[in-house]
Amino acid sequence: MTPEPEPKRDGPVAILAGSGELPILLADRLAALGRPYRILAFKGFCRRTLLSRADAVVGLLEIRRVQQILGSWRPAALTLAGGLTRPSPAALLGAIAGLRDRAALGEIIARGDDNLLRGAIRLLEADGHAVIGVRDLAPDLLAVTGAYGARRPSPRHESEIALGLRLLGDISAYDIGQAAVIAGERVLAIEGPEGTDRMLGRARRLGGWAWWVRRRSGGGVLVKAPKRGQDLRVDLPAIGPRTVENASRAGLDGIAIASGFTLVIERDRTVAIADRLGLFLTAVPLDGAAS
Amino acid sequence: MTPEPEPKRDGPVAILAGSGELPILLADRLAALGRPYRILAFKGFCRRTLLSRADAVVGLLEIRRVQQILGSWRPAALTLAGGLTRPSPAALLGAIAGLRDRAALGEIIARGDDNLLRGAIRLLEADGHAVIGVRDLAPDLLAVTGAYGARRPSPRHESEIALGLRLLGDISAYDIGQAAVIAGERVLAIEGPEGTDRMLGRARRLGGWAWWVRRRSGGGVLVKAPKRGQDLRVDLPAIGPRTVENASRAGLDGIAIASGFTLVIERDRTVAIADRLGLFLTAVPLDGAAS
Repeated sequence: MTPEPEPKRDGPVAILAGSGELPILLADRLAALGRPYRILAFKGFCRRTLLSRADAVVGLLEIRRVQQILGSWRPAALTLAGGLTRPSPAALLGAIAGLRDRAALGEIIARGDDNLLRGAIRLLEADGHAVIGVRDLAPDLLAVTGAYGARRPSPRHESEIALGLRLLGDISAYDIGQAAVIAGERVLAIEGPEGTDRMLGRARRLGGWAWWVRRRSGGGVLVKAPKRGQDLRVDLPAIGPRTVENASRAGLDGIAIASGFTLVIERDRTVAIADRLGLFLTAVPLDGAAS
Repeated sequence: MTPEPEPKRDGPVAILAGSGELPILLADRLAALGRPYRILAFKGFCRRTLLSRADAVVGLLEIRRVQQILGSWRPAALTLAGGLTRPSPAALLGAIAGLRDRAALGEIIARGDDNLLRGAIRLLEADGHAVIGVRDLAPDLLAVTGAYGARRPSPRHESEIALGLRLLGDISAYDIGQAAVIAGERVLAIEGPEGTDRMLGRARRLGGWAWWVRRRSGGGVLVKAPKRGQDLRVDLPAIGPRTVENASRAGLDGIAIASGFTLVIERDRTVAIADRLGLFLTAVPLDGAAS
């Protein structure tokens, strides 16, 4: 699979960089391909290592400035990479300070991640920009169906994975988490706004009851999948080395992700860690679950 | 409403006492009514204060002993009161020590709370016992539709409650929790096996993002409702003073429970605490949600 960005016009790819590893990976990828790119980094979200490489740094709600900067860059396409929801307190304070209509901000945020990001995309598209996703820019970051690493899921794991996918499908309308922990026929945790890592911490701390369930049924499985109808240009579920480490600390047997719809950050290292810790890591096809 | 137990035969009411306040409340109630009763307390679940009043103390899996004891008591009816799932480590160790077929135990527990308790009821009924619920013995412990205490839910709270009830209905097939925290249009937490109190702790610790959501949309609401098709003879959702205190610590505006299907433990104290802390406490009717 060759990652071939196909911009509709000349000009750089603008990376609107939020939190996490993904914006860095994308920038590196475009650099390696010799594709021109510019980085618009969001204060309070973007990693420090990327801040020094950024062409512009803005606050989350400096919407007019973002429009001006993008207007001057005239990008061939732009992509929203990394998290832009669930801001840090610092980012929030910045946003509040810079905003006149605070009620509007509250309403936007209260409406949910998906709506917030869909709104941002609509705004950018109304300005004439082509908004593309990681799937277009670096499809090889996406999980492909099959087992990664040495360990394979057992038939019991397969049923746990099926149960997890069914559950995530059923709650996807609520714009909650994209992950759950299943052990045997039990749901041990559903991800909320706290994110996957903290949910895994919760699964680790469950009491004697859960210990016993898992002693009999195995450690359980982390299942991650996109919400139905999720705009995959903005919010792909992702796993990486830290996910595997936390899943192992939680005593899980492995991780299942939706192939085609999940990013595997630092794949080689992720798989190596899974092998070292004895976890399986498998990507399963999702039937018509996401657009 | 007069709590009038209607046993099918002569003899005492046997209270199979698990965790929490409920078995104590029931015993007090029957004592006040002059109804004969006997307490069969489960080690590792039952409160200490009840242990001294118990007529027999058994381990969770001493099934034959339970059958013998109940056979000799010849109770008019028996009721399972308080939690018997999610055992403490001590109860588990006792259960394991006393059991030959450990694989069977694992299977029972792994199958889910509801199945476990339904199995217990089937077993008791097969022995010819009449299994009745708190609803039959002390219906005045159940929430009645309307607001308790001084504060009333606002129209915004009403929508949060409706969203919470819808969500709990949609996930009820998964035998997970019976509670969720909603703020604005956001689901902040879904209860897992950790229980309501720990879920409220989680809602309290959510980061700056949730702080902002709640600053705009209000503190949010705890919604509790039974699972659909839940056997209400064994597993009624309950709230009490501690629930209100934890909801307040989590910054919530109030609590909504399903009328007719939720126990309010120590009602007067619970309402007084809600009033003191400024939380609303409301019971809303549930349309055909539980049997």
